[in-house]
Amino acid sequence: MSVPVGRAAGVLRVLVPVLLLLYAVTPSAQSGPSAAWLAPYRGAAATLIASATGDDAAWQRLAELTDTFGPRLSGSDNLSRAITWAADAMKRDGLDRVRTEPVMVPHWIRGHEAAEITTPQRDTLTVLGLGDSVSTPAAGIEGEVLVVTSFDDLRRHATDARGRIVLFNTPFMTYGETVAYRTGGARAAAVQGAIGALVRAVGPMGLRTPHTGAVQYAQDVAPIPSAAIAGEDANRIVRMVARGQRVRVRLTLEGHFEADAASANVVGEILGRERPEEIVLLGGHLDSWDVGSGASDDAVGCVVTWEALRLMKKLGLRPRRTVRLVLFTNEENGLRGAAAYADHYAAQARDHVFALESDSGVFLPAGLGFSGSEDAHAIIRDIATLLAPLGLLEVRVGGGGADVGPIAMAGNAPTMAYLGDSEKYFQIHHTPADTVERIAPGEVSRAAAAIAVMAYVVAEMPQRLPK
Amino acid sequence: MSVPVGRAAGVLRVLVPVLLLLYAVTPSAQSGPSAAWLAPYRGAAATLIASATGDDAAWQRLAELTDTFGPRLSGSDNLSRAITWAADAMKRDGLDRVRTEPVMVPHWIRGHEAAEITTPQRDTLTVLGLGDSVSTPAAGIEGEVLVVTSFDDLRRHATDARGRIVLFNTPFMTYGETVAYRTGGARAAAVQGAIGALVRAVGPMGLRTPHTGAVQYAQDVAPIPSAAIAGEDANRIVRMVARGQRVRVRLTLEGHFEADAASANVVGEILGRERPEEIVLLGGHLDSWDVGSGASDDAVGCVVTWEALRLMKKLGLRPRRTVRLVLFTNEENGLRGAAAYADHYAAQARDHVFALESDSGVFLPAGLGFSGSEDAHAIIRDIATLLAPLGLLEVRVGGGGADVGPIAMAGNAPTMAYLGDSEKYFQIHHTPADTVERIAPGEVSRAAAAIAVMAYVVAEMPQRLPK
Repeated sequence: MSVPVGRAAGVLRVLVPVLLLLYAVTPSAQSGPSAAWLAPYRGAAATLIASATGDDAAWQRLAELTDTFGPRLSGSDNLSRAITWAADAMKRDGLDRVRTEPVMVPHWIRGHEAAEITTPQRDTLTVLGLGDSVSTPAAGIEGEVLVVTSFDDLRRHATDARGRIVLFNTPFMTYGETVAYRTGGARAAAVQGAIGALVRAVGPMGLRTPHTGAVQYAQDVAPIPSAAIAGEDANRIVRMVARGQRVRVRLTLEGHFEADAASANVVGEILGRERPEEIVLLGGHLDSWDVGSGASDDAVGCVVTWEALRLMKKLGLRPRRTVRLVLFTNEENGLRGAAAYADHYAAQARDHVFALESDSGVFLPAGLGFSGSEDAHAIIRDIATLLAPLGLLEVRVGGGGADVGPIAMAGNAPTMAYLGDSEKYFQIHHTPADTVERIAPGEVSRAAAAIAVMAYVVAEMPQRLPK
Repeated sequence: MSVPVGRAAGVLRVLVPVLLLLYAVTPSAQSGPSAAWLAPYRGAAATLIASATGDDAAWQRLAELTDTFGPRLSGSDNLSRAITWAADAMKRDGLDRVRTEPVMVPHWIRGHEAAEITTPQRDTLTVLGLGDSVSTPAAGIEGEVLVVTSFDDLRRHATDARGRIVLFNTPFMTYGETVAYRTGGARAAAVQGAIGALVRAVGPMGLRTPHTGAVQYAQDVAPIPSAAIAGEDANRIVRMVARGQRVRVRLTLEGHFEADAASANVVGEILGRERPEEIVLLGGHLDSWDVGSGASDDAVGCVVTWEALRLMKKLGLRPRRTVRLVLFTNEENGLRGAAAYADHYAAQARDHVFALESDSGVFLPAGLGFSGSEDAHAIIRDIATLLAPLGLLEVRVGGGGADVGPIAMAGNAPTMAYLGDSEKYFQIHHTPADTVERIAPGEVSRAAAAIAVMAYVVAEMPQRLPK
């Protein structure tokens, strides 16, 4: 077993080998060596893994979802139809208490978009408006480009920004470091009097591939239109400016909000046989951006968590606690689904024993991340030893997600994330290339198997996972 | 030296070692071992290589060309301005007899394009019309998709094609094998009564990346509109059809020809000091498709052949024969530049000693291909030994190009191609991602050095390269 066990468990393993059989039925990492207390779950874990990896059913469901509905932005017909389809399919799977829980969501519509260099000569730019951006006037906005590399660089050139279009040409580092320019660039540029903000696509260099994603405005300054341009287009402007050219760009965006639209979280369960009120929550989000088909972000997260329940049902595994699947709506531009869930279940927040979210893709090499107490982490690491046949990496410290976050925070529940390889994930993140063929069937079934085993053991073990 | 020498040279090398010094000044592979006859050229070759690889001047010129003019389709203002710029820059380089030689070229304009699945549900397809395609009616054409994998497969399903839109879903093999569906798919589908043809993009899977390129119609059947769709879009349709769905697509293309436009080949020379009438021809094509900036196809071919002359001029090397650079127009959709050159110089066709074309990119690992007699090949292989510092591969059999082809054929001249790595080249071929940042400065300078050395020796050696 390559997965480290907790220190307490390690000590006990040395001191009390004679207690092995006794502790084998006591589901606490503090009270027994990993190999021992897991014994009752090994059979189910092996069966779940064999079943998950024995065919490509999960990948086929992913393909059907993404092929049939395509992109699923909040408020779109595609999302509404996908919600209906998912609820129907969960019922056909035999999940318990399948329902849709209504949520009103923002309804942003992209409309037509265009950007071009107008000076020193006319040529089109590969552009993709940032989600939730305000529109330009119908004729577009035109201004000279001010290239900056960071917020600090913008402040150094603050007096040059007025009336200009600011290009944040920040090379892609990690997503966390770089996405700040997508979310916050427009506001920072507006504060300095800019008329628009362009952001170098937040992702590694692709094939003239822009990445969308939400822009965030603030109350302190009027919003300005904002769009991503492909890395190649950013480079071109930077080279032209370096040659001493004054580059002017025209940007036309039609993005706007319509009235909030009806949407829903889709919920299905394996009702617990002994403690149905205690919830092991699994989920992903069914909405996506309006480009690509949101296969990795996050149809696959929906499918692999859903698959955990489908496999339990198919194999006749009904654990002690309830395993609840939630396909959240509106993760991308509002988190209304997550908020509605936390509101609706506020009184049961503390009954949420554990919450696992899959919203980082399933590309290999994959791993798990966990946030919770060290006691809980020790148990989780023990359970993760059951995943050795899947070749997963260690359980990293830190993991949860935007959708399970509010209820987990309210209930102080430990959280976990299934983490696909981030380089592959961010290559196609929020782009037209987020499609099913980039994901191998084995990557999907491996994630489904890991999540099924983790959820099953946490839901089945006699003691509740400690907070 | 890893480059094989000709059989005749090999035999002689064994038989007449004592003649080494005598033969050292006789530039014929038949009459001396490779190491010997090359002696007079080693110094110039080393200097050319050192100069070419000592800075990134060639890459900078490539970046300036592609940044300043962008895509350069025949008939476009961009191409006209690039022609003027190139002639001016050649004059500034001090090349001899710089001139533009007028050519009328076709003027195809893409216009707006759209494709969408309409049934079983509406969703956009990533489409790029094939160059020279006829338009659809303004409202588009709509029909059920018939998926075929080959011309044979189409014939097997000929009765199903009438009134349908045929999708040629041929996986990318080599360009040569697969491009037949781009050029010939529309005609083959039209023969069976189809109303339109879609072609899976001719290239390896990208990031939702369609590839354009010319469609070829025939007189035997009325032309039908034809477009490429990204590999992911083709896959999606194939999966939907495999699920038993009838997939209908609407395709709207506005492509049309306007009146032929004025264009030109750009010509510059290093006039030969002894036999100026004998021509060593180098070239690439300055036009490109109207997406990306035609950096690999073929701005870089123009730059690296041009650089060969610039380096000779800069280093004061004026070989015996004339080295002529031609930046051809209209390679992509007409070859009018190549035809005009062959017409204009028909009387001098047999004075063309050698013709080298660079139109396959410069991605490493790169190599050379040669078409000519075995006697000529033996000499070329000897010269290629001078390129060892550049790490080039062997001289493959077969090489030339569409632009130098007509004059070389008329004059029975040996021809050569500089061949960049084909996998990298076809990844971005005829796509928006054909931009300068995919090409490393070292790849450009290496190609320029190789071409300069090859051209210099062939132009300088006393005997003419045999036919």
